[in-house]
Amino acid sequence: MSEQVLNYLQDNRERLLEKLNEFLSIPSISTESVHKPDVAVAARFVADHLTDIGFNRVEVQETKGHPLVYGEWMGAGDGAPTALLYGHYDVQPADPLDLWDSEPFKPEVRDGRLYARGASDDKGQVFMHLAVFEAFMKTEGAIPVNIKVCIEGEEEIGSENLYQVLEDKKEQFSADFAIISDSGMVDTGQPTVLYGLKGFTGLEFTVHGPSSDLHSGIYGGVVRNPAMAMAHLLASLKDEQEVVQVDGFYEGVKALGEEERKLIAEVPGENYQQTTGVEETVSEKGFTAKEHMMARPTMEINGLFGGYQGEGTKTIIPSSATAKLTCRLVPGMDPARIQQLVIDHLQKHLPSGVTLDIKPEPLSAKAYKVNPDHPLIKIAGQSLQQAFGKEPVYARLGGSIPVVESIDSIFRMPVVLLGFGTPEDRLHSPNESFPLESFDKGMETLVYYWSKVKDTSL
Amino acid sequence: MSEQVLNYLQDNRERLLEKLNEFLSIPSISTESVHKPDVAVAARFVADHLTDIGFNRVEVQETKGHPLVYGEWMGAGDGAPTALLYGHYDVQPADPLDLWDSEPFKPEVRDGRLYARGASDDKGQVFMHLAVFEAFMKTEGAIPVNIKVCIEGEEEIGSENLYQVLEDKKEQFSADFAIISDSGMVDTGQPTVLYGLKGFTGLEFTVHGPSSDLHSGIYGGVVRNPAMAMAHLLASLKDEQEVVQVDGFYEGVKALGEEERKLIAEVPGENYQQTTGVEETVSEKGFTAKEHMMARPTMEINGLFGGYQGEGTKTIIPSSATAKLTCRLVPGMDPARIQQLVIDHLQKHLPSGVTLDIKPEPLSAKAYKVNPDHPLIKIAGQSLQQAFGKEPVYARLGGSIPVVESIDSIFRMPVVLLGFGTPEDRLHSPNESFPLESFDKGMETLVYYWSKVKDTSL
Repeated sequence: MSEQVLNYLQDNRERLLEKLNEFLSIPSISTESVHKPDVAVAARFVADHLTDIGFNRVEVQETKGHPLVYGEWMGAGDGAPTALLYGHYDVQPADPLDLWDSEPFKPEVRDGRLYARGASDDKGQVFMHLAVFEAFMKTEGAIPVNIKVCIEGEEEIGSENLYQVLEDKKEQFSADFAIISDSGMVDTGQPTVLYGLKGFTGLEFTVHGPSSDLHSGIYGGVVRNPAMAMAHLLASLKDEQEVVQVDGFYEGVKALGEEERKLIAEVPGENYQQTTGVEETVSEKGFTAKEHMMARPTMEINGLFGGYQGEGTKTIIPSSATAKLTCRLVPGMDPARIQQLVIDHLQKHLPSGVTLDIKPEPLSAKAYKVNPDHPLIKIAGQSLQQAFGKEPVYARLGGSIPVVESIDSIFRMPVVLLGFGTPEDRLHSPNESFPLESFDKGMETLVYYWSKVKDTSL
Repeated sequence: MSEQVLNYLQDNRERLLEKLNEFLSIPSISTESVHKPDVAVAARFVADHLTDIGFNRVEVQETKGHPLVYGEWMGAGDGAPTALLYGHYDVQPADPLDLWDSEPFKPEVRDGRLYARGASDDKGQVFMHLAVFEAFMKTEGAIPVNIKVCIEGEEEIGSENLYQVLEDKKEQFSADFAIISDSGMVDTGQPTVLYGLKGFTGLEFTVHGPSSDLHSGIYGGVVRNPAMAMAHLLASLKDEQEVVQVDGFYEGVKALGEEERKLIAEVPGENYQQTTGVEETVSEKGFTAKEHMMARPTMEINGLFGGYQGEGTKTIIPSSATAKLTCRLVPGMDPARIQQLVIDHLQKHLPSGVTLDIKPEPLSAKAYKVNPDHPLIKIAGQSLQQAFGKEPVYARLGGSIPVVESIDSIFRMPVVLLGFGTPEDRLHSPNESFPLESFDKGMETLVYYWSKVKDTSL
């Protein structure tokens, strides 16, 4: 049954790649207002494709920012499941241009990789879905399940208008599950099903001391040094075994079961020495680096500054010192609660003689996790296995994808994260690329996936 | 006897102030090469004055940088003590010019203060000595003691060439004691004898982690965060009671005797809340703020930085973090040894997974202290009492004056620090000024001083 769909994709490979190149040639940089018309052209490209292949309802929905493309094919009928495909057609800026080996908006294939801004993030992966829908429609006249498509143009600027649209049109966008291809595999050639993402919260705090920088000779020993007070505060947050010392931080975090530890151990280990340049990895006491990264909460200083930062010595007591912190959260941790616990900790541990100014980060995200035994996840694994000829791994990501948490919390539906990028894709950087192998095997995976999902009782 | 000298100063006050104005009008900014000719003019001014009033030997000694003025009057004879007067005729740059209420090099008197760059630091105070020498010579035909004068032109750029000259011409510059008027009183109208200065050592260290900034989601929990490692290192250096935790730091530091504690308690307390804006002062456990500032060693973070310092959040693990530290030392502490102890401490306490790069500060100074009961200090106190009509205080300075330590170590002679500046003088800042009361009473003090020193057996 999927045979002719796969044949279609093979027979039309050149044409489809040309079409993808056309998509990638549109400089749909959402953050640069000069490219606003290009962003609209990219939205139109997606909408036209959906219309051309026979979607019932296609809309370019205007927002306060860039438009969102909505498409619907409900031809599978009431008995079949409905999936919501999320993706984005906007891209990151391309500069610095001089670091690109070919032009960012003139796609070029070199050594089996397609080089262009957006090749991996996310136009390339969105187009794989569009091509697979085309293949089903052109060969079988139908996609095995009902599909709702939501491709936005503001992902790279924080999805400013998406969540309001989803809330307002909850009915229109609701489905049995969502699928997103905007992530990657843990290693090139290693098919990966993501079943969890971390949540996120953060804050910035400033320790204020004297009203201006002071002479360290005349006032040393008289006033509390805000930079030293900040060091004490920061050091009090986490011990040297990487265990967060904030009261209640780990409350509600489920212990890591043996089964999950096994799943994590099966994920091929990145050569951290090579990719990060550190001699030695360090992780939370009692957990491996992979366990800590994927399944345990973390707290990191993202930046700090205070006092004299130029060359040589300037003998001052700084007037203030500032640090930026973020925490990555796992299920069971409420971002607002964790933020408050950190604030309470800082206030409680503040040394005398200085004051504290806290700026809570307004953005946050809850962690997301789906049971790796969920039928939708199992099917994803089976489809990957069939296409790549290799056992997939089941991984959780240390990072956050806010849209996943939003879909989860607005629609209460599972999200399948089926990403085909690789660690070498250089997202957001010069020379972004996407392996053609991912393009071919990824589409094959999707064909199997839709075919299998059709018969699944959810 | 000093009567006619004092009368001379009174009778010639206007003319002497005009002469000072002429001195202050020369923009002898040592750090700006465009002013090199002006610096030479100021040197000439000092030399000419010494020649005019009858010094035996006057030289403008060229150096690799700006010249040094040497003058000698040995007319008091072999039986009388010889004093070395140190001062400097160069000044700090005047910018930002728009913050001055009158032009920096057009002296102007307002509300009893003489406003000009260098009025207090140090041309005004140098000129007081020159005027007093003139008064003695013009009235009595002699100064009570032998005088060697060393007025340099590079103090504001670190006295780059001074020390080599002093070493090379040790014989020429040697004396029984030195006197310096390049400091201030603890409060306006409160005559002050400084009997101690702190020493100084410092270093900068960088904690290196990953070879570039990393995504805090993907690598959080895997690599040691260099900013957090730095916070732990910094926090380990000093506890919250301001006690330095470096092994051996306080070794060799003498306990503060009851007598000295009494002297310190008598120094009028600065209103730290007002001058620094802090709610609460903080000092080393067991010591008052004044004791800590004047007589106990300190360690301060002068600046620190690492990672993202812009607005908002950037979720990275910084590649490195850097801190700058300086310590102020008291007698008994060797700067090189203390620097090494801090380096040892940092290396010993470095968390795993990061590396340490230390840049020791090449400049250092030993602490300086003279017994407050030394006859030269007693006489200074008596002279101040006589001129100001007020009991002087005996204070140690939390800051360092490197030239004092050099004179001490090259010549092994006591240094009398008789400064007439006030906390309101705004040295190095716009609207530098010097109170005319200091000018008058300071010269009176010096007249008494030279008269009394004459009869002192050193």
